[in-house]
Amino acid sequence: MSLITLITDFGSVYPAAMKGVILGIDPRATIVDISHTVPQGDIRAGAFALYSVVPYFPVGTVHVAVVDPGVGTARNSIVISAGGHLFVGPDNGLMVPAASRLGKIEVRKITNLGLLGDVSATFHGRDVFARIGAYLSEGMPLQEVGEKTLDHVHLDFGMVEVSETSITGQVIYIDDFGNVITNIRAADVLGLIRFGEVVHIFYRKMPVIRTYGLVDEGKLLALVGSHGFLEIAVNKGNASKELDVLCNDPVKLIFSKK
Amino acid sequence: MSLITLITDFGSVYPAAMKGVILGIDPRATIVDISHTVPQGDIRAGAFALYSVVPYFPVGTVHVAVVDPGVGTARNSIVISAGGHLFVGPDNGLMVPAASRLGKIEVRKITNLGLLGDVSATFHGRDVFARIGAYLSEGMPLQEVGEKTLDHVHLDFGMVEVSETSITGQVIYIDDFGNVITNIRAADVLGLIRFGEVVHIFYRKMPVIRTYGLVDEGKLLALVGSHGFLEIAVNKGNASKELDVLCNDPVKLIFSKK
Amino acid sequence: MSLITLITDFGSVYPAAMKGVILGIDPRATIVDISHTVPQGDIRAGAFALYSVVPYFPVGTVHVAVVDPGVGTARNSIVISAGGHLFVGPDNGLMVPAASRLGKIEVRKITNLGLLGDVSATFHGRDVFARIGAYLSEGMPLQEVGEKTLDHVHLDFGMVEVSETSITGQVIYIDDFGNVITNIRAADVLGLIRFGEVVHIFYRKMPVIRTYGLVDEGKLLALVGSHGFLEIAVNKGNASKELDVLCNDPVKLIFSKK
Repeated sequence: MSLITLITDFGSVYPAAMKGVILGIDPRATIVDISHTVPQGDIRAGAFALYSVVPYFPVGTVHVAVVDPGVGTARNSIVISAGGHLFVGPDNGLMVPAASRLGKIEVRKITNLGLLGDVSATFHGRDVFARIGAYLSEGMPLQEVGEKTLDHVHLDFGMVEVSETSITGQVIYIDDFGNVITNIRAADVLGLIRFGEVVHIFYRKMPVIRTYGLVDEGKLLALVGSHGFLEIAVNKGNASKELDVLCNDPVKLIFSKK
Repeated sequence: MSLITLITDFGSVYPAAMKGVILGIDPRATIVDISHTVPQGDIRAGAFALYSVVPYFPVGTVHVAVVDPGVGTARNSIVISAGGHLFVGPDNGLMVPAASRLGKIEVRKITNLGLLGDVSATFHGRDVFARIGAYLSEGMPLQEVGEKTLDHVHLDFGMVEVSETSITGQVIYIDDFGNVITNIRAADVLGLIRFGEVVHIFYRKMPVIRTYGLVDEGKLLALVGSHGFLEIAVNKGNASKELDVLCNDPVKLIFSKK
Repeated sequence: MSLITLITDFGSVYPAAMKGVILGIDPRATIVDISHTVPQGDIRAGAFALYSVVPYFPVGTVHVAVVDPGVGTARNSIVISAGGHLFVGPDNGLMVPAASRLGKIEVRKITNLGLLGDVSATFHGRDVFARIGAYLSEGMPLQEVGEKTLDHVHLDFGMVEVSETSITGQVIYIDDFGNVITNIRAADVLGLIRFGEVVHIFYRKMPVIRTYGLVDEGKLLALVGSHGFLEIAVNKGNASKELDVLCNDPVKLIFSKK
């Protein structure tokens, strides 16, 4: 098996050049697009998208991730290995939450330039990461890319604070339904709030329930999404627009004292 | 051969989790995206999109279809078999027109929970339908999913009424060109109207012709689209915007008495 | 190996019918989407997108290209062979720059109608080009499609004029970042302008530099993009909106006399 995922903020056309490079090196590769519409340069949104899907891929998958506003500057290129998966991309934190979710991470800098051809200043997705990803999926030993390092950029989804009547965190992703996904985890919520309880979020009342169709069309709700985080949604509607909420906005959930 | 199509209203990211699940079970699978931009929760638009492409897939294809506003509520999960294809998804009518187009349909409820792992309340596309689809494409006998049933949700594209001077129906799909696709079939039109004849639709004059380029740029036309339904278009333009017409709007075509 | 790329202006759904046809004929085919969001009917934008990625695909790739405003009219269907790649699509210039980039081109008209089934008037992507592409990727000899011809539609990216203090050309593509890509090639620029030099383009000052992150966020820059053409960008912004520039607009770069 040779399975490579791609996640970028490139939109259309450019990812095809990466696929051409991959299939030129490893013609057997199955390539899965995670997303090419990560908001431009938004490393944390890309990190969340990658984080949310990696556990569903089999051991042996190579993830090539390119949300890379620093392309062509001094930032490093790295490969992270964790839980039998490999992650190839820029050293800007993008791949850290996903890899950490799978197990202990080991990071290597890509320093073996002999693996690369001409490298443009603006498209390392094509000239570096796709190539390295394909060599690895084709079976090249990991140590060929370069030495291990402990020095890499970290990224997490930010702090959550819990008080007797509130949980405070941050919006980390708006999905294509307009659902507002926060950094508040199932474990933060489920001990404090019963299913069916009505809470205040963004100064609006809504119930915490199990799924969208349990409120009327157009009504607000909060739920623990399939990704494991608290999510605010509108049944058959767009919560991000309804609440005028954007990525990185603070979020405060207020509940009754128990 | 192991060929699986996906159609959802999920946008980006979430379909990748379904693909990870599928390739974990059936690494040989070829996965084809039909669309992930079905208008959110619009079962009939999803049904039309699936209907319009299934005849072009080979016998043996498994279609996983998830436009599922009732996810996590009491609705059933089903597999439909028809014409050598299989359809896996919610019991809400979504797959019925496509399956019926291929032949006599046979419906089974998915009741063998032993095939599934943890099932979330909000993402059966990943936790139920992708898994069952992959087991079936990998060769699991159909009867393993559960018993046959005659009790399932029906869906069709609505009534068409024909008089001496008019045909009345409904808009069932707006494609990405803005072409307005109706539920009026080739057979409803072609006995009554000659190619080249000018008719009124949405109170506007337009010719019924064979293809877009036969009228000047920016001009309205009606044609029988490649899907077999009457379609109103603007050559190199967007008929939906030009006519201010939406999905599910009524449509009346007025022609001269013969 | 059996590798087929697709580029169309179809949006969603319709490309899936093409993939069904391809996999029915050649089940081993790996299909790569270049783009299905080429601006509707914009042959030159499609030509640029195809041109920019073909060098990254291996020899033996079959490219099926359908930006085809003349579908169903008298225009020919052709196969172009160049540099070990094949291109299948309408004779409207769409495939000429990409094929010419790979080597000397040889053009054949598709006249062997025995290879086709029923052909609709509006969807040759499905009924002609996908079928021919799959037969070729599966190994059908090229001469089976029809005779060679010297008579075909030409297309290039337009004239560039260089004076002592200016380079004048045209915008040929706006990518999904909003980067404005011109028909001015690296070779036109690099002898005349030093990296770091400030020039005027669209009456605005900007430096010509190597990559986006070398200016502050929100600032304009010009660079030679990974496709080999002069590109105007805003670091983490949208140059097309900032400058109110569209595809096919003229562009004039003014630099200091040396």
